[in-house]
Amino acid sequence: MTQNNPYGYFDDAAQEYVILTPNTPYPWTNYLGNGDFLGLISNTAGGYCFYRDAKLRRLIRYRYNSLPIDNGGRYFYIRDGENTWSPSFKPLRRELDEYECRHGLGYTTIHSSVNQLSCESLFMVPMGCNAEVHRLTLTNHSQEKRSIQLFSYLEWCLWNAEDDMTNFQRNYSTGEVEVDASTIYHKTEYRERRDHYGFYSVNHPVTGFDTDRDAFLGAGNGVDSPAVVLAGESQNSIAYGWSPIASHCIELDLEPGQSHDLVFVLGYVRNEPDQKWESKGVINKQPAQELRERFAMSAQVDEAREELAQHWRNLLGTLTVSSGDAKLDRLVNVWNPYQNTVTFNLSRSASMFESGVSRGMGFRDSNQDLLGNVHTMPERARQRIIDLASTQLSDGSAFHQYQPLTKRGNAAIGSGFNDDPLWLIVSTVAYIKETGDLAFLETPTPFADVPGSTAVLFDHLKASFCHVTANRGPHGLPLIGRADWNDCLNLNCFSTNPDESFQTTEIETAGKAESVMIAGLFVWTGKDYQELCERSGRDAEAASASAALTAMVKAVEQHGWDGDWFLRAYRHDGEKVGSDSCEEGKIFVEPQGLCVMAGIGTRDGRALQAMDSVQERLDCEHGVVLLHPAYSRYDVALGEISSYPQGYKENGAVFCHTNPWIVIAETVLGRGDRAFQYMCKTAPPYREDKASLHKTEPYVYAQMIAGKEAHRPGEAKNSWLTGTAAWSYYATTQFILGIRPDFDGLRFDPCIPKDWPSFQVTRVFRGATFQVQINNPAHVSKGVGSMTLNGESLPGNLIPPQATGTTHQVVVTLG
Amino acid sequence: MTQNNPYGYFDDAAQEYVILTPNTPYPWTNYLGNGDFLGLISNTAGGYCFYRDAKLRRLIRYRYNSLPIDNGGRYFYIRDGENTWSPSFKPLRRELDEYECRHGLGYTTIHSSVNQLSCESLFMVPMGCNAEVHRLTLTNHSQEKRSIQLFSYLEWCLWNAEDDMTNFQRNYSTGEVEVDASTIYHKTEYRERRDHYGFYSVNHPVTGFDTDRDAFLGAGNGVDSPAVVLAGESQNSIAYGWSPIASHCIELDLEPGQSHDLVFVLGYVRNEPDQKWESKGVINKQPAQELRERFAMSAQVDEAREELAQHWRNLLGTLTVSSGDAKLDRLVNVWNPYQNTVTFNLSRSASMFESGVSRGMGFRDSNQDLLGNVHTMPERARQRIIDLASTQLSDGSAFHQYQPLTKRGNAAIGSGFNDDPLWLIVSTVAYIKETGDLAFLETPTPFADVPGSTAVLFDHLKASFCHVTANRGPHGLPLIGRADWNDCLNLNCFSTNPDESFQTTEIETAGKAESVMIAGLFVWTGKDYQELCERSGRDAEAASASAALTAMVKAVEQHGWDGDWFLRAYRHDGEKVGSDSCEEGKIFVEPQGLCVMAGIGTRDGRALQAMDSVQERLDCEHGVVLLHPAYSRYDVALGEISSYPQGYKENGAVFCHTNPWIVIAETVLGRGDRAFQYMCKTAPPYREDKASLHKTEPYVYAQMIAGKEAHRPGEAKNSWLTGTAAWSYYATTQFILGIRPDFDGLRFDPCIPKDWPSFQVTRVFRGATFQVQINNPAHVSKGVGSMTLNGESLPGNLIPPQATGTTHQVVVTLG
Repeated sequence: MTQNNPYGYFDDAAQEYVILTPNTPYPWTNYLGNGDFLGLISNTAGGYCFYRDAKLRRLIRYRYNSLPIDNGGRYFYIRDGENTWSPSFKPLRRELDEYECRHGLGYTTIHSSVNQLSCESLFMVPMGCNAEVHRLTLTNHSQEKRSIQLFSYLEWCLWNAEDDMTNFQRNYSTGEVEVDASTIYHKTEYRERRDHYGFYSVNHPVTGFDTDRDAFLGAGNGVDSPAVVLAGESQNSIAYGWSPIASHCIELDLEPGQSHDLVFVLGYVRNEPDQKWESKGVINKQPAQELRERFAMSAQVDEAREELAQHWRNLLGTLTVSSGDAKLDRLVNVWNPYQNTVTFNLSRSASMFESGVSRGMGFRDSNQDLLGNVHTMPERARQRIIDLASTQLSDGSAFHQYQPLTKRGNAAIGSGFNDDPLWLIVSTVAYIKETGDLAFLETPTPFADVPGSTAVLFDHLKASFCHVTANRGPHGLPLIGRADWNDCLNLNCFSTNPDESFQTTEIETAGKAESVMIAGLFVWTGKDYQELCERSGRDAEAASASAALTAMVKAVEQHGWDGDWFLRAYRHDGEKVGSDSCEEGKIFVEPQGLCVMAGIGTRDGRALQAMDSVQERLDCEHGVVLLHPAYSRYDVALGEISSYPQGYKENGAVFCHTNPWIVIAETVLGRGDRAFQYMCKTAPPYREDKASLHKTEPYVYAQMIAGKEAHRPGEAKNSWLTGTAAWSYYATTQFILGIRPDFDGLRFDPCIPKDWPSFQVTRVFRGATFQVQINNPAHVSKGVGSMTLNGESLPGNLIPPQATGTTHQVVVTLG
Repeated sequence: MTQNNPYGYFDDAAQEYVILTPNTPYPWTNYLGNGDFLGLISNTAGGYCFYRDAKLRRLIRYRYNSLPIDNGGRYFYIRDGENTWSPSFKPLRRELDEYECRHGLGYTTIHSSVNQLSCESLFMVPMGCNAEVHRLTLTNHSQEKRSIQLFSYLEWCLWNAEDDMTNFQRNYSTGEVEVDASTIYHKTEYRERRDHYGFYSVNHPVTGFDTDRDAFLGAGNGVDSPAVVLAGESQNSIAYGWSPIASHCIELDLEPGQSHDLVFVLGYVRNEPDQKWESKGVINKQPAQELRERFAMSAQVDEAREELAQHWRNLLGTLTVSSGDAKLDRLVNVWNPYQNTVTFNLSRSASMFESGVSRGMGFRDSNQDLLGNVHTMPERARQRIIDLASTQLSDGSAFHQYQPLTKRGNAAIGSGFNDDPLWLIVSTVAYIKETGDLAFLETPTPFADVPGSTAVLFDHLKASFCHVTANRGPHGLPLIGRADWNDCLNLNCFSTNPDESFQTTEIETAGKAESVMIAGLFVWTGKDYQELCERSGRDAEAASASAALTAMVKAVEQHGWDGDWFLRAYRHDGEKVGSDSCEEGKIFVEPQGLCVMAGIGTRDGRALQAMDSVQERLDCEHGVVLLHPAYSRYDVALGEISSYPQGYKENGAVFCHTNPWIVIAETVLGRGDRAFQYMCKTAPPYREDKASLHKTEPYVYAQMIAGKEAHRPGEAKNSWLTGTAAWSYYATTQFILGIRPDFDGLRFDPCIPKDWPSFQVTRVFRGATFQVQINNPAHVSKGVGSMTLNGESLPGNLIPPQATGTTHQVVVTLG
């Protein structure tokens, strides 16, 4: 346990990140929940939770960009004689004698103490529960008896988070609560169309409560100085409109050495329409009571915690590495797959940077996220693929986002991001390679615009593939549409009005701009598509795909090469983007990564040249920047990309998502040292010593790190929810460590730094466990010299699937 | 100057409301600005300002429903030896020795002192300026020399207020500033599509500045404890992304008795596209410098303040009363017309309840607001009418809202509120009666869907009138559409999904619900429309209107009467709404007011019966509630109205907008005492002694006061921006005081409490000034016995227009 920065350290044994101060450079958060009920929690217990949809079913009111920052959550106040303090530091912000926050796998604990009274807080969402459980263990370490008051506090969000922060005309009149013993019910709008309510309970008698915020805080006060807490007396207030809250008051006497556990449950309940009411105006509390009773005893919380731990042991056990590099091990074994799972659960919907009100599930995002999750949760991945495909239209185009509650495409954003459809092939291929379930292709999956059709999943892949071939431009390259993977490269949209989206002003007549990035992606995933066609007996489609791929490779070779690197795109007027002939934005990262991954230019030296150009022009201390030089002026023909200050976001930041493409491309070229160096630059454990500069959580990837042309290079933004997580994991595990699922088995193809002597991997694949020893006696980067399975030599580097439940020893020798 | 509540009092001589504590029950606000640049300011200097559009051009970041409440604005910190305090109390919230806030006409002052150092703050938007001016006068009242530091602080909104509070993905990377001597420029997004920037300057050298919020506040701090202020040293920080702010630091030495003025200018500048830049990346500051120099000297601020005062003297001088009732005088002479003007300027866009991001200019709202403004600002009223008519469609339907920046109808909300078109007739009639400008009807005004057509304004009125006759239901009554004036009475929308608007779920096939409210409105304003047809020589239209009015009166008489009052509506299935046969919602206020105003039932006793039913069933201490009994359950056939808890909003609150209809209706019946009593119940000066209960500002009307079935009857919400203001003023001045513009002159038709002996009115009408003495020797409520003009007797009660600039004495004798 080495402390590399002033704020905290990795506790590898506990699989926790330990934070030693409430004043981190930005709120450092964790996520609770694995299913329908999800929560965000910061290192001072800030954040919120919701049922399925961060916009429409939010339970706790949360103010983004508040002052002080992160000033709402599940809060407690302890009143202990002269001392009044908050065990999570906020909201009172009174100095604590001890403070330690531990973000673990699906739970967070905060330990704090003041004047020999300690509080151990546990926050978790138990498996299968639509509730957060908060357990406080209060211990009197002094020699005197202590009589304390504990006040809980949370503010209810009136369900629709967007409406909640804008529509005061209505929502100041709608708030309603019920109070029944130690349970406070948030039944706002339950009288009308809602079939759900929230509740907050505690397993101890209360001496008072409050549900009206103004009564609790007192006139003009913030949560840092609530009148009720300062006075030590609840008002037993009932909220009628304005801002309903939930606050319990509990009085405890603690003998010297005595501990007391309190279990709070913050739950979401849905009732059938005909069972909404117990009597007129009185809600049916039965389901809430059942949920509460599941955690009536502290021991039940321990059981739930163990169940959660078991869940994560199973999940993380799918792939573990022992490399001799502690940073790599904690990345691969814990934090990267953990982030993958969270990103799978949330897509891009709710983080400290995503306010939860603006984004649905991204089509492109969600497909890519599966690269990091098909092996740990194949069943959920399978369902996600079907959900995504079901929002696709029969011409192959895809809604850019869909709503998680309804699973319907978001018409307000629409489609026209021409890379979107291809990502469905990527995710489906990953799923089939992991599971071997080729029959998945035959799953009935209607198109969104042809309800009830007999289409199967394969038809979606074909539509995706053909959407590209059917939409090519003057150079035979794919039309870009509104934008490709780079949402901000808007080559057909010419916006001069600051009051509109860059991506919705689209001219009708042109739209001729082309994307080399889509071409690279098309060839890369198209090869797998062709193989799927062949393996599923679709020979005509396979032949047609093969021809299309050949044509696309040719188009890239003829029109997609700039001399020292791959071009990025052609504008609507035929001008080049990402060319040495451009004044700014001479070189972009995306086509270099994807074209080389696709194998374009690997035989004629262009791939090597492209990657050397990346190192020369785009690489910096903090990773590979997206483009160089950054745009210093807005160019209406390029769109949003040129709207950002230089070095930020798409305009020349290290947009981390693209870095694994470069990593993989380097492994294609066999340059294991370079691949590993690139990987380390953005990987959390390797950046942990830069935490003050990095600013966001040092245990997870961020979407962006300010680039070399920025004013503060190395400062990260948009942590947690980013395609970077899945792609980085995919690159690290399948291309550096080289443990790669394939249609016919598990392939071993490491590409590592030459000085690595060996490493061990355990991988569960199609039900069998492989304990793999990789040796590198010749100190090469790549190339399997020999391989044994349970001591028996095997040709090549592929191990066929083995019987479920069996365990096997594999030894791979490089060189 | 009587203090009727714990918080403040009316200073009639100064035309100010004086607030004596920062801890009012809710932020008590004022408005700054008369033109394109507008600001909201609370009694602790909270709030924000914007150019034209509260959503798209907001300068100051403001967090609604923040904790503490109202925790952002134009703030200052004074560091004076041991004492550090904020002259507006917030954000430091350190106790002040003296505090007094005065909300005046277009300006606010705050006087405060700590330890014999006083600060007089003046906040105003000078006439014709796109800027707020903040002047601080610091005075040392002690015997010792004082050396102080003054820190300014405001946080820039990144222009689009909605994006600013949701889209952190983008806006944490876009913030940019420049600093030049004492001026801080907010140039976020100016590099791309914006042609505008903001600036904050002071007319004094600074010893330091800050533009980066985190640098100013320090990690984890709020605006109540900024690190820079506590340390007494600016960081001279430059913001790159995150949250740009503007903070100056000024050091002053004050001798005993010495005062020093500081003038801050917070401005908005727009540059022509080809003049955006001084040099590459450096903004053109010329216009900002000019604006700043207009207020370089404190004396220039005095001049601007006098200019503002003169503006208000002129505006308010249009109509003044001397009634012997100080409350009535301050209502009619100052606060009601002041609120009318503010409401005209803002429609419903920005208040402490309207967050500025959701609402455009309402078609219905803005037309009604003109009832209180045509006499004080006829030119602007004229333009507003043309703007509104220009958003109308050729079938007579109207977009429910339009955007102030573009003046285009808001398609997202659309049309289908079937009362909307009629309000255009109401406003146009009011304008023509005030000005005599019948030719206004011939103003070319294209329909929104027929650009370039030769339509004139009259065609819009005709389309409005005919939209009602063309859309009638089974009983010959007007179809209600999505809703009528009561947005929440959704008789054709059947929403069971809490994630959608009540007003957008509309069944295609039905839509047969009818509104008696629209019928009453149609007959009331239709009579004026008929007269406009006649007076403009449109005989065929006049005849057709007459027939339609007769038919509508008949339809109401046959199908709109319930026995003791007017029905409210018919549902889609023919069931009655607002009938004694209903279990709840037996009687509604709207049709009682409007039908009697229209003269329906005045001859057969129904009008009298209806008004007696109002008194019996709807009246309460706080005014006339909207309906009774309130709905205790959600009824999908009624919609949003039944979604509110009983006694709130449309479900049985005193929805104040409707109360003037009852006042006018009582004057139609000649019952002056009742009319006056109703008027007083909602009028601010008469409720001022209930300020603790009322909660919102005691000097302006609120949209809603919780009704008799509410849990806290008398508690107001949604103050300032409400049609209540114009309607109440219209009822009070034209129907109680009875000073009523008419096509051919000024009519005198008071309807007053019988015990009033006399009152005086001064009215400027079509350029001439009338000094009117109304005597009531016979102690009647209504009926003019005789009238003289400059001593000469006139028949009837109408005085024809007189020459511009002349002054006339009028004596009216009732009885």
